[in-house]
Amino acid sequence: MAEKKLVEAITARDEDFAQWYTDVVKKAELADYSSVKGCMIMRPGGYAIWENIMHELDRRFKETGVENVAMPLFIPESLLQKEKDHVEGFAPEVAWVTKGGNEELEEKLCVRPTSETLFCDLYSRIIQSHRDLPKLYNQWCSVVRWEKTTRPFLRTTEFWWQEGHTAHATEEEAEQRTIQMLNIYADFCRDVLAIPVVKGKKTDKEKFAGANSTYTIESLMHDGKALQSGTSHNFGDGFARAFGIQYSDKENQLRYVHQTSWGMSTRIIGAIIMVHGDDSGLVLPPRIAPTQVMVIPIAQHKEGVLEKADELRAGLAAAGIRVKLDGSDKSPGWKFSEQEMRGIPLRVEIGPRDIEQGKCIIVRRDTREKREADIDGVEKTIALMLDEMQADMLARAEQYLAGHVSTAASYEEFKDAVANKPGFIKAMWCGDLECEMKIKEDTTATSRCMPFEQEQISPVCVCCGRPAKKLVYWGKAY
Amino acid sequence: MAEKKLVEAITARDEDFAQWYTDVVKKAELADYSSVKGCMIMRPGGYAIWENIMHELDRRFKETGVENVAMPLFIPESLLQKEKDHVEGFAPEVAWVTKGGNEELEEKLCVRPTSETLFCDLYSRIIQSHRDLPKLYNQWCSVVRWEKTTRPFLRTTEFWWQEGHTAHATEEEAEQRTIQMLNIYADFCRDVLAIPVVKGKKTDKEKFAGANSTYTIESLMHDGKALQSGTSHNFGDGFARAFGIQYSDKENQLRYVHQTSWGMSTRIIGAIIMVHGDDSGLVLPPRIAPTQVMVIPIAQHKEGVLEKADELRAGLAAAGIRVKLDGSDKSPGWKFSEQEMRGIPLRVEIGPRDIEQGKCIIVRRDTREKREADIDGVEKTIALMLDEMQADMLARAEQYLAGHVSTAASYEEFKDAVANKPGFIKAMWCGDLECEMKIKEDTTATSRCMPFEQEQISPVCVCCGRPAKKLVYWGKAY
Repeated sequence: MAEKKLVEAITARDEDFAQWYTDVVKKAELADYSSVKGCMIMRPGGYAIWENIMHELDRRFKETGVENVAMPLFIPESLLQKEKDHVEGFAPEVAWVTKGGNEELEEKLCVRPTSETLFCDLYSRIIQSHRDLPKLYNQWCSVVRWEKTTRPFLRTTEFWWQEGHTAHATEEEAEQRTIQMLNIYADFCRDVLAIPVVKGKKTDKEKFAGANSTYTIESLMHDGKALQSGTSHNFGDGFARAFGIQYSDKENQLRYVHQTSWGMSTRIIGAIIMVHGDDSGLVLPPRIAPTQVMVIPIAQHKEGVLEKADELRAGLAAAGIRVKLDGSDKSPGWKFSEQEMRGIPLRVEIGPRDIEQGKCIIVRRDTREKREADIDGVEKTIALMLDEMQADMLARAEQYLAGHVSTAASYEEFKDAVANKPGFIKAMWCGDLECEMKIKEDTTATSRCMPFEQEQISPVCVCCGRPAKKLVYWGKAY
Repeated sequence: MAEKKLVEAITARDEDFAQWYTDVVKKAELADYSSVKGCMIMRPGGYAIWENIMHELDRRFKETGVENVAMPLFIPESLLQKEKDHVEGFAPEVAWVTKGGNEELEEKLCVRPTSETLFCDLYSRIIQSHRDLPKLYNQWCSVVRWEKTTRPFLRTTEFWWQEGHTAHATEEEAEQRTIQMLNIYADFCRDVLAIPVVKGKKTDKEKFAGANSTYTIESLMHDGKALQSGTSHNFGDGFARAFGIQYSDKENQLRYVHQTSWGMSTRIIGAIIMVHGDDSGLVLPPRIAPTQVMVIPIAQHKEGVLEKADELRAGLAAAGIRVKLDGSDKSPGWKFSEQEMRGIPLRVEIGPRDIEQGKCIIVRRDTREKREADIDGVEKTIALMLDEMQADMLARAEQYLAGHVSTAASYEEFKDAVANKPGFIKAMWCGDLECEMKIKEDTTATSRCMPFEQEQISPVCVCCGRPAKKLVYWGKAY
């Protein structure tokens, strides 16, 4: 009875996706609500995933010359106001510190919603010559945006992210860096998280406050809704002009720098859950899983079972596999449920009979495939199965994405697709804000991006019928 | 001329220690002031040291079963007030958020000065049974305490740290954990930072707001002032009672948990600077140095020099040494000054004549010792020299500490020591707050700790002459 509680407590995924999501977050002990409205707690299970994400991304950033820094948590109101579009975009959703100790502050401070203004302020002081360029700084931190409705990982008042901020001598170099970082995000999602993405450019309506252009990677959740999973912005010299960030070039001429910023956040953990999870809970791609293998002894009270199980664990650990042994006094069935709920990629079952025969049973979390394997050399079998599972998860996600992109040449087709075909809708657009607004109002679908891979589906805008300028991916989105 | 500027710009260490410190922080590009009063920016040079500190400590924590989490940045006023001593200690120095978006908040939120109350709130919800214990959580984050006077790393309004918070079934287990973490800090300081410390217990006056007992490691700076370098607190069940954190034991009895917390902060970077630095700038112990070796080519315009220098760099990197090549167009002399200012442990000079002879010159940052070495097999020579330097730096720091502890049996001796003998003063204490206050008022020296290694210097209190209870380390402190 009690053993089934863990599993029964989860809503079926296709019955109520939103409730299923909340159940997984809670039962897999990824996150919890806190006593501060809209702020989440990342519990060990969730934070360990974030640690692996940080580790993987940070390594990729550093390989391209990026250096980490730490900037203040606060932004004085006057600094936030220096770039007009930027302050308009963010001021309505920031938290304000008005008292320090027992004193009213002369100038109120906002808790950073993003740190462009702080980096610009620093750059204006430390950049003088072309020799000081490029500056390729990044920070790992949390930021705060006052949200009305929140959901763990997907939208929380405080969230964790990295924000990279770079300054370059030329426009071309800034544009290259913008695309380079977008590609790092896309490759990371595909190769580590087994999540395929669509790469493209945001429309002016959807771009970042203060940016010339915003690039995005968009992924598709199991319910057919899109998730903006990482963005990279080219600011041109707009911020540089507002903040006076100039360098003297080789001919001793003063020039404005060109800047970029790019970020990926704890939101991506929501994508991992919603792309891969199933009715038994979380399913983690092996490359990001904090624990890749759980060894579960069967009849562990029998002589030698726990010892042998721990020996097996030690062998796997020595081979560089992230492995744990569940030697608690719970029943094997309960342990299976927990391992499944937490999305641990493989479980190894080992009992007295297996030990006698020098065997163990390996079970894959995603397919439930069971394989009997020799204990001798099990490290290789496990390593292979982890690789297979990683590849299969990506293949399934790619297949899902490919199967959930529809094409609409007319507005009727478009509305039908929004209503009946979960996923992205490819349709042509004239480039006018009005059509974008009308589509959103009529259908709730928003423009996700103008994909790098452009096609000509029809010569005219799906909404107004005037000549089309761009192919756009549309969709309902988180 | 220009080449000497970097070095000349530093104040001599023994002339004006405070100015020297500020100069090093600035010229070594460790930190910078920001546009937010009292808040610092950690620049790449400083943050890379912090990254290594985090990496080393985190590994040690995890080996003892600690798990990382992320808690909210904000604490509602009512939550902060739940433990009486705690709120009295912290309320005067917190920053208050009173507005979110465009609305006045119903309840104001403080920016966490420390997170005991948040962890307690979580623990009260997730701890039910003895099976849920112990909880060994830690987080890496920044905290905010409104400070009047600030100095980079040593005292800033926002600072970065880790804060561990644990909950245990028994008093004994909590006490063991408190001491275990203190020992991890002490070992880390000695083995990685080459900083010896004195371990002991704080007096009631100096202990953490809400703790039963606070343990500390105290280190000694070059100017003879002490620096509290890490603390570990045993809370008993005080917080558990205030927050209602109870578990049912094996006999199904409800019991309060016993808790600890422990922290080390970016302050420790101040200690690295002030223990090891010299008139040429920073000196980093090899084990914590982001860059351990700087390869500097001589006459790099000559054919083959840069190539050979880079080959040497690649060989060192392949051997796991953190190495960079300075191939910029600055002069070698300028590069030497920079490498010295930044405290990079070893520099390798390699020019045309050296290459001809298959040699290079290795210069130690701390002693300036020059060694000629064969390029062939230089990895081993370098690894050995890094180890030697690490050991020598610790030995020198230990010698300095040992030479700066004086003993005072009478109040006259005590006052003379404070005035004329920089360093710790060992003296007996009756245990009364009044004497502690009087000593501070008369001399500015404070009680640093009651060391674990107690001695009987005299039978009476150095201040009042009544029977002594404890040997105390006293000193001026940062």
